[in-house]
Amino acid sequence: MTNNNEFISYDELQQFIKSSFEAVGLSSNHADKTARLMARADLMGQDGHGVFRLPQYIKRIRAGGLNVTPNIHCVEDRTAMALVDGDNGMGHLVMSHATELAVQKAAKTGIAWVGARHSNHAGPASLYAMMPLEHDMIGIYVAVGSANHLPPWGGTDMLLSTNPIAVAVPSATNPPIVLDMATTVAAYGKVKTAAQRGEMMPEGWMIDRNGQPLTDPRKAADGFLLPIGGAKGYGLSLVFGILAGTLNGAHFGQDVVDFNADSTTTTNTGHFIIALDIAAFTDPERFKTGIDEVWRQMKSSELLPGYEAVRLPGERLAQVTKTREENGIPMTKSLRSALAELAKQLDVNPL
Amino acid sequence: MTNNNEFISYDELQQFIKSSFEAVGLSSNHADKTARLMARADLMGQDGHGVFRLPQYIKRIRAGGLNVTPNIHCVEDRTAMALVDGDNGMGHLVMSHATELAVQKAAKTGIAWVGARHSNHAGPASLYAMMPLEHDMIGIYVAVGSANHLPPWGGTDMLLSTNPIAVAVPSATNPPIVLDMATTVAAYGKVKTAAQRGEMMPEGWMIDRNGQPLTDPRKAADGFLLPIGGAKGYGLSLVFGILAGTLNGAHFGQDVVDFNADSTTTTNTGHFIIALDIAAFTDPERFKTGIDEVWRQMKSSELLPGYEAVRLPGERLAQVTKTREENGIPMTKSLRSALAELAKQLDVNPL
Repeated sequence: MTNNNEFISYDELQQFIKSSFEAVGLSSNHADKTARLMARADLMGQDGHGVFRLPQYIKRIRAGGLNVTPNIHCVEDRTAMALVDGDNGMGHLVMSHATELAVQKAAKTGIAWVGARHSNHAGPASLYAMMPLEHDMIGIYVAVGSANHLPPWGGTDMLLSTNPIAVAVPSATNPPIVLDMATTVAAYGKVKTAAQRGEMMPEGWMIDRNGQPLTDPRKAADGFLLPIGGAKGYGLSLVFGILAGTLNGAHFGQDVVDFNADSTTTTNTGHFIIALDIAAFTDPERFKTGIDEVWRQMKSSELLPGYEAVRLPGERLAQVTKTREENGIPMTKSLRSALAELAKQLDVNPL
Repeated sequence: MTNNNEFISYDELQQFIKSSFEAVGLSSNHADKTARLMARADLMGQDGHGVFRLPQYIKRIRAGGLNVTPNIHCVEDRTAMALVDGDNGMGHLVMSHATELAVQKAAKTGIAWVGARHSNHAGPASLYAMMPLEHDMIGIYVAVGSANHLPPWGGTDMLLSTNPIAVAVPSATNPPIVLDMATTVAAYGKVKTAAQRGEMMPEGWMIDRNGQPLTDPRKAADGFLLPIGGAKGYGLSLVFGILAGTLNGAHFGQDVVDFNADSTTTTNTGHFIIALDIAAFTDPERFKTGIDEVWRQMKSSELLPGYEAVRLPGERLAQVTKTREENGIPMTKSLRSALAELAKQLDVNPL
């Protein structure tokens, strides 16, 4: 694989994404902001949620399914909460706005919860959960996924998405703890990757409409993802969908639009972000030292046979980010081709 | 089984629990409040978290491990948050206090988060998550479990608990949606029940120290519970433990006291409750009608072979509560014996 990779810097990537968005009508400011967040996702190793998504975003914009000049504004606002209407703009703009608002409010109130509706796919969940970290705050982010891939437990109608959660917690000397997970055993992107590579999937990722294990990713359309812990993961996906969708007046259930299959229908994607100000609870330095102690205890555990180390959520993210800051971001040949083709279409400088 | 059951009313049960707590020194007010919550847990069908726990609570009180005259007070207080110190009192008193505070604050701010430390086992998570419902609020509750039953993913040192989450959401004409789940495939109580019944456990509940499936519940001490979704459930247990424990100055990780095995050491149990005021986001009636629509969609799904219905979280709880309100709470012979023995010890009227 590595032989096929070319490495590009964050700055090069960010510039390319920015030019692409400017070419389809985003303001320079909006294009710049979205590009920073998308390139940041690649820097973090979230390859399925960074520039990989650019062709689809651009396709939707050109099809008229996304507003390039959104008026992102609050429709509800109380001391410790707000509800942001994204006016069908880029999800990155909506959720970075919502997160900034949550941080501002939490600094006064101790905690804030900001929901969003009429948003769109916003990249990796951890991108937003991590934003409060630099303010010595904890971030919690939840979204309604951008396509339904599973039924309610015991059913076969696709009514639920992988509705992910991310939680980011700062430490003193270790990387932050960053959990970023779908409520399904495998994210749908992993199924697509297996299909591209011609590999079979392990049992437990998907079942077919008869409830039998589905292991051939080329038949993914004949089955559905399995939630973590069976009915428990279904329950998590359901309540996250209600909290990020229904509560905000965003789509949930049968109204969810498959963002990859349909480029014109407004997705009305919902998300929420919580910012928790650690200083409201305790001295932030003391707390962060406590999180170092959590790292120490988990890392000190004796190991199960076959495991080389206990890992903490966010550990790989920190390692990949550091490596990519030094060496650049690896780009597969197929992704480079797709982006070269895009550059041609948009008449912007290629990567 | 049913032949062995006797049915008692909520009022009888509440009175018995109240008398028992008064006999060991709780004030009449505290005994009454705790007894209402414990009997409510039985009414809800949470048999492992109601009066079943009374002998253990009383044992701890008599051993001096729990404060019968706690000064439950706020140590931190901001507009939308508070941190409650339970002064090692009954967890039910601490968390009902914390929840009332969260509801009061949320009515003004839209949302409130109240953490607690120096608390104790407080019964089922759903008991607190459901309290905001009558105020047209959503409740979210998380706790550090009262004993460590699993290692970090890949390890063998027992550093984590089943750290449960409960989320309660009101509807207009259907029961509330109430998710109440451990972050492990099986709660430890299910392992104990299997042992009592002489039954084997299915693969997937526990593994031994070599990573092999452990299916004999009598050997439970030689292994550990498995988290839902493997590393994902480990991550959830970890971040819930940090948010409910470390952030509040409560125990987490190796400091967690096994509440069933040790009746004297202060547990310093941590929890948190979030109250979300629906009216801050939208018209509550409109929202609750939207939750009815969620019920309708999920219930309308075609079924997988072998399933009789799609169920929603909270559906069984509502059915059991209704049945028990009408017919009383079933009590097994072994539980009746244990409570009769307790009544004798405490010199209170038996059930």
